[in-house]
Formats: sequence, C-alpha cells, structure tokens
Amino acid sequence: MKKLINDPENVVRDALQGVALAHPDLATVHIDPHYVVRSDAPVQGKVALVSGGGSGHEPMHGGFVGMGMLDAACPGEVFTSPTPDQMEAATKAVDGGAGVIHIVKNYTGDVMNFEMAAELCRAEGIEVESVLVDDDVAVQDSLYTAGRRGVGVTVLMEKIAGAAAEQGRPLADVAGIARKVNEVGRSMGMALTSCTVPAAGKPTFDLGDDEMEIGIGIHGEPGRERMALTPVHDIVEKMAGAVADDLPFSSGDRVLAFVNGMGGTPLIELYIVFNELVGFLKGRGIEVSRNLIGSYITSLEMQGCSISLVKLDDELTQLWDAPVKTPGLRWGI
Amino acid sequence: MKKLINDPENVVRDALQGVALAHPDLATVHIDPHYVVRSDAPVQGKVALVSGGGSGHEPMHGGFVGMGMLDAACPGEVFTSPTPDQMEAATKAVDGGAGVIHIVKNYTGDVMNFEMAAELCRAEGIEVESVLVDDDVAVQDSLYTAGRRGVGVTVLMEKIAGAAAEQGRPLADVAGIARKVNEVGRSMGMALTSCTVPAAGKPTFDLGDDEMEIGIGIHGEPGRERMALTPVHDIVEKMAGAVADDLPFSSGDRVLAFVNGMGGTPLIELYIVFNELVGFLKGRGIEVSRNLIGSYITSLEMQGCSISLVKLDDELTQLWDAPVKTPGLRWGI
Repeated sequence: MKKLINDPENVVRDALQGVALAHPDLATVHIDPHYVVRSDAPVQGKVALVSGGGSGHEPMHGGFVGMGMLDAACPGEVFTSPTPDQMEAATKAVDGGAGVIHIVKNYTGDVMNFEMAAELCRAEGIEVESVLVDDDVAVQDSLYTAGRRGVGVTVLMEKIAGAAAEQGRPLADVAGIARKVNEVGRSMGMALTSCTVPAAGKPTFDLGDDEMEIGIGIHGEPGRERMALTPVHDIVEKMAGAVADDLPFSSGDRVLAFVNGMGGTPLIELYIVFNELVGFLKGRGIEVSRNLIGSYITSLEMQGCSISLVKLDDELTQLWDAPVKTPGLRWGI
Repeated sequence: MKKLINDPENVVRDALQGVALAHPDLATVHIDPHYVVRSDAPVQGKVALVSGGGSGHEPMHGGFVGMGMLDAACPGEVFTSPTPDQMEAATKAVDGGAGVIHIVKNYTGDVMNFEMAAELCRAEGIEVESVLVDDDVAVQDSLYTAGRRGVGVTVLMEKIAGAAAEQGRPLADVAGIARKVNEVGRSMGMALTSCTVPAAGKPTFDLGDDEMEIGIGIHGEPGRERMALTPVHDIVEKMAGAVADDLPFSSGDRVLAFVNGMGGTPLIELYIVFNELVGFLKGRGIEVSRNLIGSYITSLEMQGCSISLVKLDDELTQLWDAPVKTPGLRWGI
C-alpha cells in the first residue's frame, strides 16, 4: 500500500487537522466527535444543510462546507458511515432556528444513522428534513445499498440547495429544491483501477491490466459489467447513454454536465471525457449549458470517472450560478 | 496503459477541445498552432503574461488563463516543449501594447523555443521580457535541464505576477515581481508511482512496491534518492527541510505554502501532508499565512506530491489575495 499517511488508523483525524489549519476562515473542525461546520455557524434564520458519509471521497463533504453550500459535514472513517452522535452534534451546531436539512446518500448505514440523529434532534425541538440522493443508474441494489446508490448528484444537490438556503428560503422550499435535483439528476461511474482502504492495506478489488469496470460504485462496489478497455469515445457513449436513457433526457433539454474524477485520474483525461460527452449529448439534441469538471466525489486513489447530468430549468440554473465559497468549490465571491 | 483517451496521438487536441467547450467565457482555444488565450484578449494597455510547456501538467498552464493570471498558454505535446510558432502566435494574440512577459520553466527546450519566439516578436515591435522559473532544490542539472528545474513555484508566480499585471503596472514592474517570486520561492517533489506518457505506452520509470523517489521531477526525472516508503511525517521533514534550508527561510518568516498533488494523489493525503508541513514549519518559527492545496502542476497520473514555499511580504500577500478567475484557480470574483 503506497500512501502519504502516518498510521492508517489516524488518516481521517490527520486530514481533518490539515483542513482546520488550511481553512480557518471558511470552516471549523471539531474532533471527537468529528464534524466540520461553517466558521460563522449557526447562521440565524437560515435553513442549515448537513451532510456526511464515509471519508475517502474528498473534497466531498467537508470541502463543501461554507457560504452557499453546506453548513456542516460529518466524516466517518474511510468508506464507513459516520455515527448518529456526530450527526446530532453537527445538526445542533448549525441550527439557526429555521430548520435543518440532512442530505443523505442512499447507503444503508448512512440512512439508518441519519434517521436516528434526526429523531434525536427532533426530540430536542429542532425541525429536521431528510433528503435522499439515489442517482446512480448502474444497478438496482448493491453492496451497502437497497435501491440505487447516491453518487455524483450529491455534489450538485449540495451546491444548488445550499444556494436556496442562502437566499433565505424556508425549510420546505429548500428541501423541495434538493429533492427536485435528485429527481432530474442521474449518474454513472467507471473504474480503470481499484483503490485501497488504508485499514485494509490491499486493493478492494482486482482488475486485469486491460480491463475496466462500468457502473462501479464509489466504494468499489461491483457495477454493470467488467470488460476490455476501449477508447473513451465508447466508454462515454455507454455511460452517458445509460444516464440519458434513464431520466429520460430529451431533445431540447439543457443540462448541467458533471465529469468527475475518481481521485487518481488526471485532469487532462477528464477534459477528453467532457469533449466526448458534449458530442454525444449534441447528437441527442441535449445542450450542456453548465458544467463542472474535476475530482469532487472521489474514491481514494481510484482511476476512473463518473458522469452526472442534471436537467436544468431557470431556477436551478440561477441557483447553480449563485456565489459559493468553500474549500472545494468557489465562485462569484 | 490504462487511460481515458482515444488515439494517444490526439490526447492534447482532444483535451483542448474539451477546454474550449467547457470554458468559453474564460478562454478561447486555438488549434494549429495550439494556444489558449483569455476570451477578452488582447486587453489594451495591460501587460500580458504568456506561459507554456509540455502538456500532462494540467491544470497548468491552460487552466490558468483568465482574469488575474495568464493571458495565454502554449501547450506542447505531452512532456514536450511547445514550438516557437505557438509562442509567437500566442504573444501576438495577447499583446495589448504594454509588453508581454514570457514565464519560462527552466527546461532546455522551453528556454530555447521561448527565446526564439521572443526574438521573432521583438522583430515585429512587441516588447517581450522573459522570466525564468528554477525553484526545484532537488538537483542541480537534470534530464532536460541545465541548472535547476522549474516546478511548483511556476503556479504561484503566474498568480502573483498576473495580479500585478491586472492592476495595470508597467512591464518592468510586473517582470520584477515575477522574478522576486522565483527568488523567494523553493520547491521539492516526490513520487510513489511513475506515470505513463501516452505515446510511450509504458511507465517512465519503475519503482518497487515499497519504494518512493524523493526529489522527482515533473516528467519523472530522477531525484535525490530512492528509498523505502516511510510515514508521511518523515517524508515532509525531508522535503520541507531541504526547501527551507535552501533559501534559507528563517524564524519569523511568513510563507505561502503550496502542497501539490502529482495527478494521481487523493486530496485526503494532501491535507495530511499539509498538516505535517505546518507542524514542521512551526518548529522552525515559520508561519504559514497563505496556502494552496490540490493538484495544480501534475505529472499525468503520477502519485506523489510536491511542497513549495514562497516567502511573503505585504506586497506579495496582497497580490496573492487579489481576485482571479480561471478554470483552475478562482476566488474573489
């Protein structure tokens, strides 16, 4: 196992200490239980957004804490759900009296623990709404998941709902916008290589030298098919076709296209993927009117990519364009 | 070779087409000869900054074209110098009458070709100043280089000098600031794995399963020593010690600390490196007052990192903080 770490047991804590040192203006890091909150939390009168999940997907979620996106993030151990006490502490820390939204990726552990935390918080008088993300079209049910997995659209939901919250909209509105993003968003991923969980010390799965896995999950869960590596043109056709067929996106649609790197993928390849994606969608009469290209929801050092599409209307476009200031995503301010 | 590409011959062109499609508001891409310019170029009366070098280091340089940073970038083939005709065309395209600065990383091919381009442009009445970056303390002379290599400080120079140009300062001033960044900046890199140049199809060098290379160059050039992998605490001590000793940075200094990923390194590891770096520098009485953490000057899918330090004064700090709006670096606007 080749990693820039000290003790595999302390990877999450060491990284959080780095985050705390790097971004004191944006985020405050609490150790034990681990959570990251906006440095100006709680923002009185604003709906607060809390997300979380296993670590190893950086910058998601901790890197999206700040103005216009998340109020708090709860990092679990690598690829392990955070605990209800982390979520409860984070929710209390950011509650500004207007209610709190939990953005929950659809993994059994995350769902269960966020539900428990929501109940604890409600018992203390905090209004909590949960929004589930289950955008991965690759497989129905998976390792760790009943139903579809939550993947790339999580990032886009956090940005768009975060903008709505920043505008002072009420809880039901912000939750409605978040749910709408999930309804009009779809994703699919693929891997060229596995990743290695530090505590495991060996690759999560094996792939042959000329193989790739289409439909991979962000923890290396099996996808749709394992096949010989092809030119990226064919990979994009396969992935974007599955994504576009699922909604279905149709001719005349405008979309936000998100080309995401899995952590070990160089940016030059992501731009090649994006070039192919625009061509593919053009063939279907779909216009890419906004885009995000980079490694934002990762799987440690896995090589590969995912494609997410969100069908845009004027409201979602305006919320996407709104200012955001976090360690991982920043514009307009 | 596992890459998200089509024909290895067309990697640079395909990626540039992706850049053109993704960022029409920021940058315009010219194909044949390849160069990327600010979408509002030439900016009349502003000193223009042009850089360039081999591709495979993305987002550098094309991702740094935009307001507050570069006016143009010339991408060569992967790890291959761009040609004088690219540099000449880019220089002419951005000349706004106040002169043009060529930011040149110290590699023999880059230096020679930029010198030729500068002469061609001067012959046509454009004032051109060249600024060399040679910040890598690892080795004196290297594959492709006489003297020290230009590495991470290039990114910081492009940002800082770009801000000075944006403020309307004259050519000699902006060039002076760029040279100052090189004078007070030092870097060193390391690799856990090699990278594979698409046209070569096999790894540039071999490293054992438990080995790392300290002092690696951004094209996989040999470094100072190949040794058994150690905890990151020791790696940072070795690299940051060499960097800090070289200037020398001294107690009471404030620095901009740049922890850079080589392309295949997950962000969680870079934050662990940053945590160690701050601790190391604190032990020497050096305060990290600004930071940049991420993969900004890469070596395709190489795993590893580099550390760059730039000694800050009030002027450099203010220029670093100034607004920038490029695909790869963006804040304040």
